[in-house]
Amino acid sequence: MLIRNVSILKSGQMLHGRDILIIDRRIAKIGKDLRDEVGDDVIDGRGKLAIPGLINGHTHLAMTLLRGYADDMELMPWLREKIWPLEARLTAEDIRWGVKLGCLELIRFGITCYSDMYYFPDETAQATREMGLRAIISGVVFDMRPELLLEVEPFIRRWKGDELITPAVGPHAAYTCSEETLQKAKEIADRHDAMIHIHLSETREEVDGFLLSKGKSPVEYLDSLGMVNERLAAVHCVWLSEEDCYLLAERKANVVNCTVSNLKLASGIAPLNTLMKAGVNVCLGTDGASSNNNLSLFEEMKVTAIVQKNAYHTPAAFSADQIWQIGTKNAYKAFGMNMGLNVGAQADLALIDLRKPWFCPETNILSHLVYSMNGGVDTTIVNGKVLMREGVIPGEEEILEKAQERFLRLTS
Amino acid sequence: MLIRNVSILKSGQMLHGRDILIIDRRIAKIGKDLRDEVGDDVIDGRGKLAIPGLINGHTHLAMTLLRGYADDMELMPWLREKIWPLEARLTAEDIRWGVKLGCLELIRFGITCYSDMYYFPDETAQATREMGLRAIISGVVFDMRPELLLEVEPFIRRWKGDELITPAVGPHAAYTCSEETLQKAKEIADRHDAMIHIHLSETREEVDGFLLSKGKSPVEYLDSLGMVNERLAAVHCVWLSEEDCYLLAERKANVVNCTVSNLKLASGIAPLNTLMKAGVNVCLGTDGASSNNNLSLFEEMKVTAIVQKNAYHTPAAFSADQIWQIGTKNAYKAFGMNMGLNVGAQADLALIDLRKPWFCPETNILSHLVYSMNGGVDTTIVNGKVLMREGVIPGEEEILEKAQERFLRLTS
Repeated sequence: MLIRNVSILKSGQMLHGRDILIIDRRIAKIGKDLRDEVGDDVIDGRGKLAIPGLINGHTHLAMTLLRGYADDMELMPWLREKIWPLEARLTAEDIRWGVKLGCLELIRFGITCYSDMYYFPDETAQATREMGLRAIISGVVFDMRPELLLEVEPFIRRWKGDELITPAVGPHAAYTCSEETLQKAKEIADRHDAMIHIHLSETREEVDGFLLSKGKSPVEYLDSLGMVNERLAAVHCVWLSEEDCYLLAERKANVVNCTVSNLKLASGIAPLNTLMKAGVNVCLGTDGASSNNNLSLFEEMKVTAIVQKNAYHTPAAFSADQIWQIGTKNAYKAFGMNMGLNVGAQADLALIDLRKPWFCPETNILSHLVYSMNGGVDTTIVNGKVLMREGVIPGEEEILEKAQERFLRLTS
Repeated sequence: MLIRNVSILKSGQMLHGRDILIIDRRIAKIGKDLRDEVGDDVIDGRGKLAIPGLINGHTHLAMTLLRGYADDMELMPWLREKIWPLEARLTAEDIRWGVKLGCLELIRFGITCYSDMYYFPDETAQATREMGLRAIISGVVFDMRPELLLEVEPFIRRWKGDELITPAVGPHAAYTCSEETLQKAKEIADRHDAMIHIHLSETREEVDGFLLSKGKSPVEYLDSLGMVNERLAAVHCVWLSEEDCYLLAERKANVVNCTVSNLKLASGIAPLNTLMKAGVNVCLGTDGASSNNNLSLFEEMKVTAIVQKNAYHTPAAFSADQIWQIGTKNAYKAFGMNMGLNVGAQADLALIDLRKPWFCPETNILSHLVYSMNGGVDTTIVNGKVLMREGVIPGEEEILEKAQERFLRLTS
């Protein structure tokens, strides 16, 4: 596949009139006047910008099916009265169409890979593979449903080595899993060299509870179980002490912050500057569509930047290029992905239509991507395969219809 | 003009299969199986939602020309080193294309009316009229350029009674205008029953300065000059005492908050709940593209809702329907516009393509509009005239080229 005459993003600048040659699943060459000796698919890149694909570092993709079903409620009534009763009725078929609906949105936002934690990980993986996206999928584990712990290792065995799907372990949180469950989750992850994906220090109540009952913060508690390491994706991390930040850094753990969800649920604002000063690898996720309510990493980048500027009392903090690095390179590192507009990297990228008013005038492209952009992803490519071309995703209409049907069944 | 088979937004719900008949510049009928006896323009509304047009309550539209030119800087170096030197070079021709560029974006976001404060108000008004948008345009006034005060009354005389343009007076701020200037600005506004558009209590430094030098908050100071009334659009209002809130309410003044700009410049978070509890009419604006960096009121609504939820420590605050009312009805009231999907109202509306993943499943349409939507405005109509049809704005390409040319000239 050859993308011709496209603008590319290189070290924060736009270079115009480049060609990108994709052979098989990799970027084979980037340059001028390239030829494709192997394939015959040519994409006209004029007026478009190629960016490396984005990673949505934390979501519950099947929950896209519950978008807008319940908003603006306190956390516990929201879970007890709305979310949990519906989740108890979820079937594999609901997951399938919820995930596909979520994939449509990811594709439209230039997100080529996501990290998921939810029930029915096999169905999530299967639907994602059918949609052609890449994902790190964690089978969720918590004590209220003990069978989940038994299901997670077989799930990992089934998907290990898959080209698009990386299986992982998802103990829901330190307050919903007993010490024994967390230990077993860790053993499974260790056996398979898999990542652990966990909600951590999301609310003040959670942290206060641990300090009272165990005399440790949730981060310190997890560390005492040996779970804080470079295979940890610690999600949210809103309420951290300075010691927590340095501990996460020392252990080379990854933090996935979800600013929009944290604000919408009134959980607070994470100390991202302190984390990064300590040297923690911070990346971003949107959380599920039932608490955001979309899956856009562009929006997440902007809201994170401006909220952090205000929290640290200076507009100079969290500049466009810093936040772009948090949204891209830091995520590639956290999830071990060979991504970027580089020769040899996975052919996971997006083309953005530059002929939109929010890209005018041509000043600072990273500023435009982070602060101005409102739509315009035109083409999304994952693993060398075109998933959306000029705004068209084959089969989109059927997925929207099926998702609507499944939602009606769930709530009937 | 007849819009056929469209979904409409009525009291927060979607009603499907309606027709909207527009005669001349007004909504003449809303119902089923309507016929257009007068015109022959029919718009197919299937799969689309009609919403009343939005008002962007505060911007400096010509500054769209400076988008991305300088970000992530402290306020004073940003103004002194970047913005002011460029503004000193602005010509009428720059304003013309900057405003047209901004209008493109407003049209794409379903914004049919905006409130502006800037230099060259005549050129702003002229370019806006050519683009077909509605606007309240305030000639800016401050002491560093005394000629501006002399120019504002002739500007008002020229545009008073215009179908699309409402002229107003824009004293920049209480700290950039002397008491004498503010008095004169007020006299002009009073003589013409015009609005006053002013930046007020934006930063803590501003408020501290007034408390020290005058023993009054900026709100109290303006009130002592008789300027706080129902014709006041007080912009930002980030740093208000509870007394300020009740004073603004008692005087029936309007507050235009710009959450995104306030965060990006690290100015703080406005006490919107306190303002609204006191009974103040609060609406929203984006500020200029050089401090936001886009003009989307959808984004402004979402960010305002989630930031205020977090500030008041409950996800139940600032619900989707509240924020939708702040974004629509409150703005119509502030600027005296007869807008809304009602018979007899101005024919200012937008059609949104519902066949996007962020509108699926069909649950709560206001939640989707406020929290999920990321693009999809398809058609924008102002004063009974179609400005964008199915995503196409005639002349867009020329405007993008001219804006780029003007920016290069400015910075050369």
